[in-house]
Amino acid sequence: MSSIDWLAFSRALDKIQFIEKPKQVKRLSQDYYHFSPILQDLLADKQAKMIVQPKSEAEVITVVAACVQQNIPLTVRGAGTGNYGQCIPLEGGIVLDMSLMNKVDWFAPGVASVQPGVKLVDIDRVTRPSGWEIRMAPSTYRTATIGGFIGGGSGGIGSVTYGQLRDRGNLRAVRVVTMEDQPQVLELRGDEVYQVAHAYGTNGIITELEIPLAPAYAWAEVIVTFDDFMQAARFGQALGDADGLIKKLVTVFADPIPSYFAAFQDVIPSQSHCAFLMVSEESIAPLQELVREFQGSIVYEKSAEEASRGVAIYEYTWNHTTLHARAIDPNITYLQTLFPGDHDLNLVEHMYRHFGDEVMMHLEFMRVGGRATPAALQLLRYSTPERLQAIIQYHESQGAIIFNPHTYLLEDGGMKQVDVAQLRFKEKVDPYGLMNPGKMRAWQERWAEG
Amino acid sequence: MSSIDWLAFSRALDKIQFIEKPKQVKRLSQDYYHFSPILQDLLADKQAKMIVQPKSEAEVITVVAACVQQNIPLTVRGAGTGNYGQCIPLEGGIVLDMSLMNKVDWFAPGVASVQPGVKLVDIDRVTRPSGWEIRMAPSTYRTATIGGFIGGGSGGIGSVTYGQLRDRGNLRAVRVVTMEDQPQVLELRGDEVYQVAHAYGTNGIITELEIPLAPAYAWAEVIVTFDDFMQAARFGQALGDADGLIKKLVTVFADPIPSYFAAFQDVIPSQSHCAFLMVSEESIAPLQELVREFQGSIVYEKSAEEASRGVAIYEYTWNHTTLHARAIDPNITYLQTLFPGDHDLNLVEHMYRHFGDEVMMHLEFMRVGGRATPAALQLLRYSTPERLQAIIQYHESQGAIIFNPHTYLLEDGGMKQVDVAQLRFKEKVDPYGLMNPGKMRAWQERWAEG
Ligand SMILES: Cc1cc2nc3c(=O)[nH]c(=O)nc-3n(C[C@H](O)[C@H](O)[C@H](O)COP(=O)(O)OP(=O)(O)OC[C@H]3O[C@@H](n4cnc5c(N)ncnc54)[C@H](O)[C@@H]3O)c2cc1C
Ligand SMILES: Cc1cc2nc3c(=O)[nH]c(=O)nc-3n(C[C@H](O)[C@H](O)[C@H](O)COP(=O)(O)OP(=O)(O)OC[C@H]3O[C@@H](n4cnc5c(N)ncnc54)[C@H](O)[C@@H]3O)c2cc1C
Repeated sequence: MSSIDWLAFSRALDKIQFIEKPKQVKRLSQDYYHFSPILQDLLADKQAKMIVQPKSEAEVITVVAACVQQNIPLTVRGAGTGNYGQCIPLEGGIVLDMSLMNKVDWFAPGVASVQPGVKLVDIDRVTRPSGWEIRMAPSTYRTATIGGFIGGGSGGIGSVTYGQLRDRGNLRAVRVVTMEDQPQVLELRGDEVYQVAHAYGTNGIITELEIPLAPAYAWAEVIVTFDDFMQAARFGQALGDADGLIKKLVTVFADPIPSYFAAFQDVIPSQSHCAFLMVSEESIAPLQELVREFQGSIVYEKSAEEASRGVAIYEYTWNHTTLHARAIDPNITYLQTLFPGDHDLNLVEHMYRHFGDEVMMHLEFMRVGGRATPAALQLLRYSTPERLQAIIQYHESQGAIIFNPHTYLLEDGGMKQVDVAQLRFKEKVDPYGLMNPGKMRAWQERWAEG
Repeated sequence: MSSIDWLAFSRALDKIQFIEKPKQVKRLSQDYYHFSPILQDLLADKQAKMIVQPKSEAEVITVVAACVQQNIPLTVRGAGTGNYGQCIPLEGGIVLDMSLMNKVDWFAPGVASVQPGVKLVDIDRVTRPSGWEIRMAPSTYRTATIGGFIGGGSGGIGSVTYGQLRDRGNLRAVRVVTMEDQPQVLELRGDEVYQVAHAYGTNGIITELEIPLAPAYAWAEVIVTFDDFMQAARFGQALGDADGLIKKLVTVFADPIPSYFAAFQDVIPSQSHCAFLMVSEESIAPLQELVREFQGSIVYEKSAEEASRGVAIYEYTWNHTTLHARAIDPNITYLQTLFPGDHDLNLVEHMYRHFGDEVMMHLEFMRVGGRATPAALQLLRYSTPERLQAIIQYHESQGAIIFNPHTYLLEDGGMKQVDVAQLRFKEKVDPYGLMNPGKMRAWQERWAEG
């Protein structure tokens, strides 16, 4: 590391924009890792030497070549809203900030070609007037970039209909610049895209993405309250299963989670469990029947037109729930759980009763393999790392899958196993291991085995 | 019956169009009941006295009042493409042919208000240029009316995404004229529509329908062949479960069914099992990956533009499969089966092997309670009524649900139990039991009990 000639490097950048001011470098070296008390300790001091801001694929290639020449680690950054330190440079080097490559290059019915740094909300701004929108978005929709979502995200608002990013069809193609002496530009289509998607920027720099678009319904917002949590949860499952209702968001909160939402204090009676929903306007009438069947009360309803102004309910769902709770009680952290597909929600009920107030139930329904399935981002009153670990282990022992949000390692956050295709691909596109070093466990452990 | 004064009746019709020519009356008194060798014997001689063709709701009211006055049975007819004699007048009287009430009154994004006699294809003709289409249609799409589909149909092309007509949200509202001394016009919304939907025209005359519309994707047509039937079936299930692929039709045929399709003899190699598919054009690329995974071969592919001309593959699916097979071998009839949702398709496989060539497997995947589920319209080599009954019973004993297509009774065709809401509604709207008499078992049996 010590041998890097930074002056030579910045000269090689030529007219490419870069930042060296310490305060800005510090800010652009971080993300939302602080949601995790574990990651807080591990990542607080990590920082890049400089931030480089390319405006085109050609500039990306120039930066990459200069990095390879000097063995400089490179960590790609979208908007830095990841929760696991995905874009925090563990070994310094540069952060490649993609936010200036932010155009929608073209779109047609059902498909768009976009640059990686475009914000999700800005894609919709371009395509919605023609009746199309992105299929799914994280609750950081207004700030996050498409490159970061594909690089580090999993799913979100829209997943109740279209499943997750990893599901075939939800990403059509990517162009990537490789980190070789002679950087190449590869175009991947079909299943090959998963060599790069959700790789935390360890497998090439995405410079263009072809994504599917969904029909843009007029989405109404609805909040329904219930006296009983399991009634709310079963309602969520039934709505997820209701083939004749068009939905984009089905979130269920156990009491006291809604009490953390300042904006809804006048709307949601205290001590109630509730569902936050986005459904197409034409689905409101049949939704009312379903609500009646489950003895819920609609306490809030906004047409699509009204929903375009003021507070947006999706910004209280997915991991924004954690954000709002932490704003009131910084001691709160969270879990990420996939419950098994089970119409009766037995395991959800078991965990709800077992942990009581220590683990507050927050369900997000999404399609998994064709079925509406409860995922959860439970709020957790943090005490010690050991207790956190015990809670995770209890969930796993009972058959829930935990996507641990308290690790920055790619594999440990989700699949728990090495993705061989990703590893082989990395050997080709990042032979020197300069991309976001320290994040892919398989790459580290490769030497131990070989 | 003998006391009906037909001259007085036709005078009461005033300027309303009617037909008395025997040949036309005969034709307009029949439907596709002859698919069933059982119904052939029961219904061949049934016939109305005259066919009345109203042009407006006001005319419907005039006809109804005149019928009630003289105690004349009234059987509503759309296009007469039903398979169970739904619109065959068992007790004579008049057939009310709705085909002249055939306008799309208005439509907006996601919803349309239409008259009952409009053909399904003509709704799409009006709405498609704005990007919308009906959610589902029977394979008789080009001839069937929306009133007849709601009155006697169940689902079809589109059901793999939106479920069936009976699923909440797939019918928004109906206006019905009651058959009372003073006919009323009722508007039903929400769950109340099911008092009239799928009632075989025994519960009021639908004069207007508000239906949801689906986004009109550019639908490509694809045929995939497989060496092994179960491989084809599992592929169908996987496609049904693929949340990231947009689909409208997932049909699977066991060999020798494709050999009945003259139009595809050059396309489908003999002795192969195959899938007939409609997917959105953007889904073709991920579909190819799925086909590869299941070792299928794509032998036919048409873009949406190409599919708008020539043979349409949907006209080989659903009950059109039976039509084509019967054109070659009139001894063939069919079953209608719902297999239990089971990812491994064990019962499908069991029946496939158990009956061999006597019951040729034809699967239609549709969503049932949120899951892609195999329904079947198996082709059956007919021998005797007893054998047919034994085959049905064997299916039921193994856990498959049979919707018997060999009965004209409303309840016996499907639910096998009396729909109390429909019965109560009938008592209000058709107190004299004049509507399509003989079709609702509950109405007949009511006296036995009461
Ligand atoms: C309050 C809150 C709510 C959230 N809700 C959700 C949610 O609902 N669903 C969800 O999935 N996530 C959620 N997240 C996580 C995160 O916001 C999203 O995944 C978001 O899409 C990340 O986008 P970004 O632009 O901020 O990416 P970044 O954080 O900047 O980057 C994410 C990863 O992608 C890599 N990357 C970025 N650009 C590229 C590129 N061009 N080429 C290759 N790799 C690249 C980075 O190296 C990094 O590893 C949430 C986070 C917060 C703080
Ligand atoms: C080859 C073939 C394929 C088929 N495929 C399918 C399929 O895929 N899915 C499916 O569901 N069906 C299918 N069917 C059955 C039938 O074609 C459809 O259900 C079709 O929608 C019926 O429409 P129709 O206008 O012909 O109705 P009709 O046969 O004229 O009427 C059907 C029933 O509705 C009642 N009815 C009609 N209009 C009104 C009204 N205005 N008010 C009240 N009641 C009314 C009638 O009294 C009758 O009981 C098929 C039939 C054939 C012959």
